[in-house]
Amino acid sequence: MKILVINAGSSSLKYQLMDMQQEKVLAKGICERIGIAGSRLKQESDRSEYIVEKPMETHADAILMVTDALLDKENGVIASMSEIAAVGHRVVHGGEFFKSSVIIDDKVKEAIDVCSGLAPLHNPPNLIGIKACEKAMPNVPMVAVFDTAFHQTMPAEAYLYALPYEVYEKHKIRKYGFHGTSHKYVAQRASQMLDRPIESLNLITCHLGNGSSVTAIKGGKSVDTSMGFTPLAGVVMGTRSGMIDPAIVPYLMENEDMSLQDINNLLNKQSGVLGISGVSSDFRDIDGAAEEGNERAQLALEVFAYSIRKYIGQYTAIMGGVDAIIFTAGIGENNFKMRMSILKGLDGVGITIDEEKNNVRGQEIDVSAVDAKVKTLVIPTNEELMIALDTQKLVSK
Amino acid sequence: MKILVINAGSSSLKYQLMDMQQEKVLAKGICERIGIAGSRLKQESDRSEYIVEKPMETHADAILMVTDALLDKENGVIASMSEIAAVGHRVVHGGEFFKSSVIIDDKVKEAIDVCSGLAPLHNPPNLIGIKACEKAMPNVPMVAVFDTAFHQTMPAEAYLYALPYEVYEKHKIRKYGFHGTSHKYVAQRASQMLDRPIESLNLITCHLGNGSSVTAIKGGKSVDTSMGFTPLAGVVMGTRSGMIDPAIVPYLMENEDMSLQDINNLLNKQSGVLGISGVSSDFRDIDGAAEEGNERAQLALEVFAYSIRKYIGQYTAIMGGVDAIIFTAGIGENNFKMRMSILKGLDGVGITIDEEKNNVRGQEIDVSAVDAKVKTLVIPTNEELMIALDTQKLVSK
Repeated sequence: MKILVINAGSSSLKYQLMDMQQEKVLAKGICERIGIAGSRLKQESDRSEYIVEKPMETHADAILMVTDALLDKENGVIASMSEIAAVGHRVVHGGEFFKSSVIIDDKVKEAIDVCSGLAPLHNPPNLIGIKACEKAMPNVPMVAVFDTAFHQTMPAEAYLYALPYEVYEKHKIRKYGFHGTSHKYVAQRASQMLDRPIESLNLITCHLGNGSSVTAIKGGKSVDTSMGFTPLAGVVMGTRSGMIDPAIVPYLMENEDMSLQDINNLLNKQSGVLGISGVSSDFRDIDGAAEEGNERAQLALEVFAYSIRKYIGQYTAIMGGVDAIIFTAGIGENNFKMRMSILKGLDGVGITIDEEKNNVRGQEIDVSAVDAKVKTLVIPTNEELMIALDTQKLVSK
Repeated sequence: MKILVINAGSSSLKYQLMDMQQEKVLAKGICERIGIAGSRLKQESDRSEYIVEKPMETHADAILMVTDALLDKENGVIASMSEIAAVGHRVVHGGEFFKSSVIIDDKVKEAIDVCSGLAPLHNPPNLIGIKACEKAMPNVPMVAVFDTAFHQTMPAEAYLYALPYEVYEKHKIRKYGFHGTSHKYVAQRASQMLDRPIESLNLITCHLGNGSSVTAIKGGKSVDTSMGFTPLAGVVMGTRSGMIDPAIVPYLMENEDMSLQDINNLLNKQSGVLGISGVSSDFRDIDGAAEEGNERAQLALEVFAYSIRKYIGQYTAIMGGVDAIIFTAGIGENNFKMRMSILKGLDGVGITIDEEKNNVRGQEIDVSAVDAKVKTLVIPTNEELMIALDTQKLVSK
């Protein structure tokens, strides 16, 4: 079975065609600058790196270019559209409607649209991508896989904010959490690596990338996660503040005469390790500056590590213990110095890594010290595979 | 040595006269409705409960009434003002100026004034109280004891928010923490109860009252605390939200057309367990409603307990282990059901209490289970004694 995975952004569309028998990527690509001058498609496969520069007015145009590229005589990887058994769509926000992935029908599309108020930058292009695919592949089943769905198992004490209850009822303001597909994927891999049923495991998964979140997974279910109503909350990120005293928001607005847009911009785009270091949101730049003696760069790294260490501690407590810590995504997979820094001082609570084993990038590996009570694993994430697996499961029913 | 402890609010002034030899309260009282019609002084001592109803225009009037009451032939406890060796003043905010208590001079008063921007409701009346006392007792040494000072030992990774660094430099926006006098007092008592030097202990102190905060104390020093730039942050409280996704603030302001004052009011006065339960900010009312089957009241109790459990976990991790959890203040000392609820599920990390021992209110007691790796202590707080002890130490130098 071959499954096409689609991740539609506002002006881009990423895709992967997967062969599910071997869990192998046949081709992957991106349509860039949709609706903007200079749009192009770039596709990689075993056969070639294939670039097509051609105007794309809409996501519907982009999807047609994708299918053309997949079918292309010289660069394509399939001979006929009928080889694509199903399409899996990444959708950011499923609100409280979706607790798992679903086959897309009119009701599902309606609910995704309702959730646009909660994710105004993401859900509308996700929905446009779905509709464009339906038009191009009218008889192919489509599945929606939500970033929020995995976290819908959180109990009320974890997802409810201590705000007037009406704020939850009227605005649906609660903790949703994000990166669910990634947290779920690495948790399943961890269970396989540890050779223990996921039902028996307490896991803490650290997805540390451009955006970062930490999740407590008990028996395979998300019981708490660091992101909140929006992806701003939780641990410190590249340009996002993570958790701060909420009173800072009105204080700054008043004392700096900031608008709502100014403050959102400050918290989402100018904060995080960029804000502290003044150097960059890219950890490679900050590492470099810190090594050259830049104190604010060093401080940014410490504040970042500390914010994650605190979540590891709190999630250990609420699960009543932890079996394994998992690092994934750009920083989690590659930045071995940061992994060391995050776990500094945690040997007192049973978490110790082997410095030599830990000295790797982008590999699936157990980096725990021999005598560590708690395992530490590095697991490269694969959200596309997870989307494809969910899609396969639903369309095979 | 006798020391007068003063806690001056905007329209009230609380006081205690202490005999330091026996650490005994000779008299304690309050001046209420200063500057408002119907003002009165109420004083309790072994001799009497003494009430004087008399207009008090200013805090200076109030101080004169206090000294009159302390000297009163029938109801007083001293024969001459010369018996008062020193006055200790509670001051809420010492900013980054004060890392410990200090003898008050002009420079200190100036710095307290500078910190008024950080605590506009508290520092100005604190300063008025100091000046009124200086006028009434011109030759008596005065000491300022700050709510924030104990937390000035926090390392940068704990106090710095991941905001643009200029926000810290220009506005001094960072984590300060509050209730320092209480956390310090119960930590010292814990060291005595455990008969171990405080330098060797990792403690987590839970001050749970109308406002609540949790502090990590390593070797006698605060290394992190749950309140932040303001007392709004951290754990869930009676009417305060504690930590929420900061993006909720602009979201609500936009969607509910709220002003800065509206949002401050919502987060500080209408949130917390009051907001969730819709019943009350008083835990006795919420307990009652929950027992009668009110689901939102039950939920409020669970969200409160959960928010504290998470801090116990994160502070255990950052200290690399914990020796004792300490409960203090109104809820911490008296609400034994809440103590049970907070520690639920923590036996996995070594925290277990003896349900029978725990069934007490307002007593200094070790409530740990016999085999608990981590001790759990209930210690009634005594901020006035702590202020008096600091004052004694400074004036005796």
